[in-house]
Amino acid sequence: MADFRPGTAEQEAFLDSLLESGLLIDSGVPGIYGRGGDFESVCSRFGRLITDAADDDGSETLRFPPLLPRRQLESTGYLKSFPHLAGTVWGFTGTEAEAVTQSERASCHEDWSQYQSMGDLVLTPAACYPVYPAIAARGPLPQGGVLIDVGGAYVFRNEPSGDPARLQMFHQRELVRIGEPDAVAEWRDLWRDRALEILRGVGLDVEFEVATDPFFGRGGRMMAASQRQQELKFEITGQIAGPEPTALASFNYHQHHFAETFGLELADGATAHTSCLGFGLERIALALFRTHGLELSEWPDDVHAGLEWK
Amino acid sequence: MADFRPGTAEQEAFLDSLLESGLLIDSGVPGIYGRGGDFESVCSRFGRLITDAADDDGSETLRFPPLLPRRQLESTGYLKSFPHLAGTVWGFTGTEAEAVTQSERASCHEDWSQYQSMGDLVLTPAACYPVYPAIAARGPLPQGGVLIDVGGAYVFRNEPSGDPARLQMFHQRELVRIGEPDAVAEWRDLWRDRALEILRGVGLDVEFEVATDPFFGRGGRMMAASQRQQELKFEITGQIAGPEPTALASFNYHQHHFAETFGLELADGATAHTSCLGFGLERIALALFRTHGLELSEWPDDVHAGLEWK
Repeated sequence: MADFRPGTAEQEAFLDSLLESGLLIDSGVPGIYGRGGDFESVCSRFGRLITDAADDDGSETLRFPPLLPRRQLESTGYLKSFPHLAGTVWGFTGTEAEAVTQSERASCHEDWSQYQSMGDLVLTPAACYPVYPAIAARGPLPQGGVLIDVGGAYVFRNEPSGDPARLQMFHQRELVRIGEPDAVAEWRDLWRDRALEILRGVGLDVEFEVATDPFFGRGGRMMAASQRQQELKFEITGQIAGPEPTALASFNYHQHHFAETFGLELADGATAHTSCLGFGLERIALALFRTHGLELSEWPDDVHAGLEWK
Repeated sequence: MADFRPGTAEQEAFLDSLLESGLLIDSGVPGIYGRGGDFESVCSRFGRLITDAADDDGSETLRFPPLLPRRQLESTGYLKSFPHLAGTVWGFTGTEAEAVTQSERASCHEDWSQYQSMGDLVLTPAACYPVYPAIAARGPLPQGGVLIDVGGAYVFRNEPSGDPARLQMFHQRELVRIGEPDAVAEWRDLWRDRALEILRGVGLDVEFEVATDPFFGRGGRMMAASQRQQELKFEITGQIAGPEPTALASFNYHQHHFAETFGLELADGATAHTSCLGFGLERIALALFRTHGLELSEWPDDVHAGLEWK
């Protein structure tokens, strides 16, 4: 299992207050929490703000389960960049006698890993991944490309932490733009302004910044430097339980990477560009509870109005 | 990986028509599909019918991610009854050099399983599982017990199949009742009638039946016989793509099993009983598309009204 990374005293105190208030529910594993009704309600109300804006842009709705074909993960280079964050799904294919031993060991909390073998599925590491092969399978893109609304999709990161803003399983409220390079860049600029407006509209103090992904190892530092230099990743950051601001939303511009991997072609046969924008629903809810207090009914009227509270 | 079970010719033809129409989206792994907007819309509209009814009963909303602590699965006996259906989550904890080899093997679609080790998490096998320890942690139940609305939760079954009604990852629209044995039985009877009414209200031809779980191996046949004799499981079945009717919803009465495992106590200190009701959202959507046709806009007016279509 991955090493546990403790949170700061402030982060762990915030987590305790969330658990005490019933906004989050302890599971026994750090980074895996149940959610109470108020927490869920904030996530779904915020998600609807994104749905409404994307609907106005003529987005197409697609949804995907939180599991991806292992073969697809193998093709994307994810295991080169983020081997430490990936999760694979294993299962039992043994005999009845082996099933008995496996069950007996498990019931004593002893090691039963030898009875499991790797299957065809992995946990989805980013909500946009299943979109590219799905769109590529349709053939060349229509003129102007496509905008896909993936909804609030569960993604997995193998990083147990005491910081409630660093979950192992969380929702990315994700939009994906595929098309001509100019159109993709224009869409990103549109949403930079719109995302700032939506987040500020619910009373969050946020900034737009050039950012990098948490690439693995020494080679990863070079990948991060190159990503920063080319300005391929931006984040909207805000304060949750410090010391540093946390990314509440993130834009990734993949240029032709996914299009080449999956064969996404423009109407004229050229390779498409892709970009995605993900809002971290749990992080946004945490920032809201941190900013406006743990008692949802006591939030300021303009925040309720911003969330179109009934 | 688990053996693939082909569907019947009728089931596979129905799957083909769903993929062609864009209602489902192929991933390359049987039983893992994306969903188009119309499919998603039917699932969420149907789910809301359950939400509205549960709200009227004073249910409490809780939500859980599709991963569960492995230790919890080990404690429930799931691996004795259903070892073939469970999924465990593995990850990488090796060196930088090992990460390079893992990535190289993976990119050639060669075996990289030796670099993965079993972690602390498993895929949630049933939407009710995380509820029991969460409620037990609160201490003795209030008088009358509790009714929990878990929403539409993703659950995993390791059973790749060519039948579109047998998914590896699907949504259980789940309610859980915990309380005195009489109260739990009364709740089940109430929902038997209500679930039939809701499903018939959207034009599905359904029946209520005593049922059994798909227990593993020879020992499992005895467990199934005992379950049937005690009438601990009921299903509401309907036709999708035959030959047999398929369970669209399922009631499980666990008596004191989960309450003893997790220490769920009544107000007077006695052991509680538990029961759950799960609607298979994808199966219900499939039954609706099979019954009313693949073109949502052409469904009968009374079905749209039954789904409170806007």
